[in-house]
Amino acid sequence: MYTIGIDFGTESGRALLVDTRDGREVATAVHNYGDSVIDQRLPGSNKPLPPDWALQNPFDYIEVIKQTVPAVLRQSGVKPEDVVGIAIDFTACTMMPTKADGTPLCGLDEWRANPHAWVKLWKHHAAQPQADQINETARAMGQGWLDRYGGKISSEWFFSKALQILQEAPDVYRAADRLLEASDWVIWRLCGTEVRSACTAGYKAMVQDDGYPPREYFAALHPDFADVIDSKMTRTFGQLGAKAGGLTAEAAAWTGLRAGTAVAVANVDAHVTYPAVKATKPGTMVMIMGTSTCHMLIGDRLQTVEGMCGVVRDGIIPGYYGYEAGQSGVGDIFAWFVNHAVPPEYHAAAKAAGLDLHAYLEREAAAQKPGEHGLIALDWWNGNRSTLVDANLSGLLVGATLSTRAPDIYRALIEATAFGTRVIIEAFEQRGIPVTELVAAGGLPEKNALLKQIYADVTGRSFRLAGSPQSPALGSAMHAAVAAGVYPNIEAAADKMGKLKDEVVQPIATNQPIYDQLYADYRTLYDTFGRGGNDVMKRLKALRRAQRGEG
Amino acid sequence: MYTIGIDFGTESGRALLVDTRDGREVATAVHNYGDSVIDQRLPGSNKPLPPDWALQNPFDYIEVIKQTVPAVLRQSGVKPEDVVGIAIDFTACTMMPTKADGTPLCGLDEWRANPHAWVKLWKHHAAQPQADQINETARAMGQGWLDRYGGKISSEWFFSKALQILQEAPDVYRAADRLLEASDWVIWRLCGTEVRSACTAGYKAMVQDDGYPPREYFAALHPDFADVIDSKMTRTFGQLGAKAGGLTAEAAAWTGLRAGTAVAVANVDAHVTYPAVKATKPGTMVMIMGTSTCHMLIGDRLQTVEGMCGVVRDGIIPGYYGYEAGQSGVGDIFAWFVNHAVPPEYHAAAKAAGLDLHAYLEREAAAQKPGEHGLIALDWWNGNRSTLVDANLSGLLVGATLSTRAPDIYRALIEATAFGTRVIIEAFEQRGIPVTELVAAGGLPEKNALLKQIYADVTGRSFRLAGSPQSPALGSAMHAAVAAGVYPNIEAAADKMGKLKDEVVQPIATNQPIYDQLYADYRTLYDTFGRGGNDVMKRLKALRRAQRGEG
Repeated sequence: MYTIGIDFGTESGRALLVDTRDGREVATAVHNYGDSVIDQRLPGSNKPLPPDWALQNPFDYIEVIKQTVPAVLRQSGVKPEDVVGIAIDFTACTMMPTKADGTPLCGLDEWRANPHAWVKLWKHHAAQPQADQINETARAMGQGWLDRYGGKISSEWFFSKALQILQEAPDVYRAADRLLEASDWVIWRLCGTEVRSACTAGYKAMVQDDGYPPREYFAALHPDFADVIDSKMTRTFGQLGAKAGGLTAEAAAWTGLRAGTAVAVANVDAHVTYPAVKATKPGTMVMIMGTSTCHMLIGDRLQTVEGMCGVVRDGIIPGYYGYEAGQSGVGDIFAWFVNHAVPPEYHAAAKAAGLDLHAYLEREAAAQKPGEHGLIALDWWNGNRSTLVDANLSGLLVGATLSTRAPDIYRALIEATAFGTRVIIEAFEQRGIPVTELVAAGGLPEKNALLKQIYADVTGRSFRLAGSPQSPALGSAMHAAVAAGVYPNIEAAADKMGKLKDEVVQPIATNQPIYDQLYADYRTLYDTFGRGGNDVMKRLKALRRAQRGEG
Repeated sequence: MYTIGIDFGTESGRALLVDTRDGREVATAVHNYGDSVIDQRLPGSNKPLPPDWALQNPFDYIEVIKQTVPAVLRQSGVKPEDVVGIAIDFTACTMMPTKADGTPLCGLDEWRANPHAWVKLWKHHAAQPQADQINETARAMGQGWLDRYGGKISSEWFFSKALQILQEAPDVYRAADRLLEASDWVIWRLCGTEVRSACTAGYKAMVQDDGYPPREYFAALHPDFADVIDSKMTRTFGQLGAKAGGLTAEAAAWTGLRAGTAVAVANVDAHVTYPAVKATKPGTMVMIMGTSTCHMLIGDRLQTVEGMCGVVRDGIIPGYYGYEAGQSGVGDIFAWFVNHAVPPEYHAAAKAAGLDLHAYLEREAAAQKPGEHGLIALDWWNGNRSTLVDANLSGLLVGATLSTRAPDIYRALIEATAFGTRVIIEAFEQRGIPVTELVAAGGLPEKNALLKQIYADVTGRSFRLAGSPQSPALGSAMHAAVAAGVYPNIEAAADKMGKLKDEVVQPIATNQPIYDQLYADYRTLYDTFGRGGNDVMKRLKALRRAQRGEG
């Protein structure tokens, strides 16, 4: 028996056809979204979008389904009747307004020209004023759920975007019978039923034990927002791995699968990765490492952990509290350095060595002992997500001398991100949520052996890599197997289908005390510059904005 | 009437023939030292020198005289009888052992193979253990003169080097009838009389109001060092601008000048620059800006100023206390950045614009408003000389984001060095030594209009440039005029012969409050990282040394 997982990313969607017995990846196919990320102008329009906007076309998601599922069937030769389930994971929060039947507003002539009628992609950052209002109002009203999100709701999340629609385009808001995650919309298109995923509801839409925040809170944000839940959303949630429904005849025609094939509740790309790397128990921290790092962790108790992005019961693995934390700049910082601060001689040397510049710098940096470069950095080039939740922090490098060279700084930046992860680990452990091992997914650690060793040395924990280069799609296929009843739960599916690389990177004993020493200094700098000891970073950002005439 | 000034630099010597009426520079000639800086192996030897050694061949100095003086006479057509005086300035402390008649030990077959027989150039840094001993002993014995040197004697200075000879080559020490500054040796060669310059004696050999430190202090350093002054040096000093003697017949033959031509007491390159830019009164700070910056200032009273390099009565302008301070990395830091931290696209853009990379980055950085880049740096890539006197400090950059680009950092580094100068100015003013205007000499400000404006804005003081590209040689020619009696004193010579560029860069009123704000943050970082609030820089350097197996 086989299942199909589809991973909807920022630029494209990927289907993976998997053998449910052992997780063998039989076939895969990718389709790039026709309209990609819409951040300049709407399709067919010349009107520029404002800064910080990022939209998508929902019909691109349908096209992914129509293209990739038939492709994996064709490639594999697997018969449709042997595919027992289909599941998806998605970027989040990526949300959209639709009519009562699920028709996207942007698909209607009446609304097509209004940017608010389109899908707001996760990285749509234009709802910051709404996020600020949401946070201030929650604090003023003493809303308890705020602590579950590190004390701060992001501009990326559901109600920031929904409130932006209401405030900036009340007509679109009125015309929207439904406001929902794009992932839930895709599931609706597949099985004909709107099922709100408990995962996105919890992490992105403030749903906690008591459900959504109360009506009076929404009313305080805007009178017309008071009934947003009951008029445009649902209060019932689908658990991860549960069956949302069976494939409709229409969706069967799109895909070549059989009508009635089990369709699982939608998941989120980061969250679905957790079981995909066989992580199903407390103690394992899964890090999805790319431009930024997302830390996923489960625990058997509810705790408030400093600066976590969210804690949601059943949010990652049903039965556990799922914790999420994050570092807002990781691969982004390395890319910044490589693109903007490495002199020509290293570019030339990398070329001569047949390596890309990252790999060349890594090789040079790997020849050093810890501490040999004499540098420490604070990895805040893109602010700090956890534990400080402060976008106005910035990068710091200390220890530069006339003999500092590019590989020195490159190594210091890798170390800084590892120190940042250690701060997060310690924040969890301080609250009794253990972190005993690290598993990384994403392209970044894959390519960088030094990074793996530094993370192991700095954190004093074993470091393993995801076994599949497409863990999210694999995780979705696993959830499809649970939804189809192949496995009783995700733990059983993970046991058979999840994948880890064999290599286990262990801390090097002699490196650990050196990194403990450097970490102590990192920590002091972290607290000084991040917790009010010296607010120079905020003053610099404020002055920068003032001098540029921004805000 | 004409005079000739010769500026002995690190790599070469330059003669300048000047009209004493107006300072007109009639002719100039340069001669590179044949043996340049001897830091690998002695001439004619295969034996490598240890690290941090830097020697010179004293006969190269004589060759400069033989080559350049006839050349300027030839070029100018000026008759020898119209040249009334000759003077020199030199790097310092650059010292050497000789026999009683002035014969350099390295000129004798018996001693030629011993590195200690050669000239120890100013940047010979191998006498650090001796400097440490000198400082510790002085502190332990409560030697009052230590405060006159910012509490620390440098490894570059006279007795550090002399003690190194005694400790490492006692036979050379014994064979040396005289230990003296190379500049005083050159004057001796020119006029036949050993005259110790009050300037180098004060700044480099701890001579203060009471003369040298007492015999018991030298005895405490080493029993055989007790009589170093009376056995190998002199207790009488020649004032700046005084006549050391008349040109000998031999030196007349070398130069083509007339025997008996006035020869002035030797001076130091930085110090001689002060009057060369018409600075003769308290209030003017002259900055010799190159790889590092040397700040020269005079005052009418004696004060202990934090971290000054030295204060010497009559050390710059007779009749005043001459103060010296310094920043150990300035042009060096900009060069480090340009060579080691600027990506290829800027190299290409500079080339396309027909500019060198410094000039290109300056142009880009000049388009910004103060504070627009969001950065602050501590300019300690090469440690901090004044006010902290700490070589174990290092560079810091705060405020980096993913949008930080090379011109941003370039500008922040220029600003950091200006902030560093402001700290020095405030240290002087706090002790009642006024600094009312800045004059810069050296190649660095010459090429960089942005730097001039930033220094004016940051310090709130007018900024002018030296009028001559060879200020030291001009200053020497002025001292030669005083020694020859053309002028009664250096003030009168400076008035007629000194040179400033016409341009006066004034602070821009709207920039000053922005820089005041940034300076407040610089100052906080300066105090935190420089005065024990957070000693991370020292810990990083210590760890770096340990991991590299150094010291």
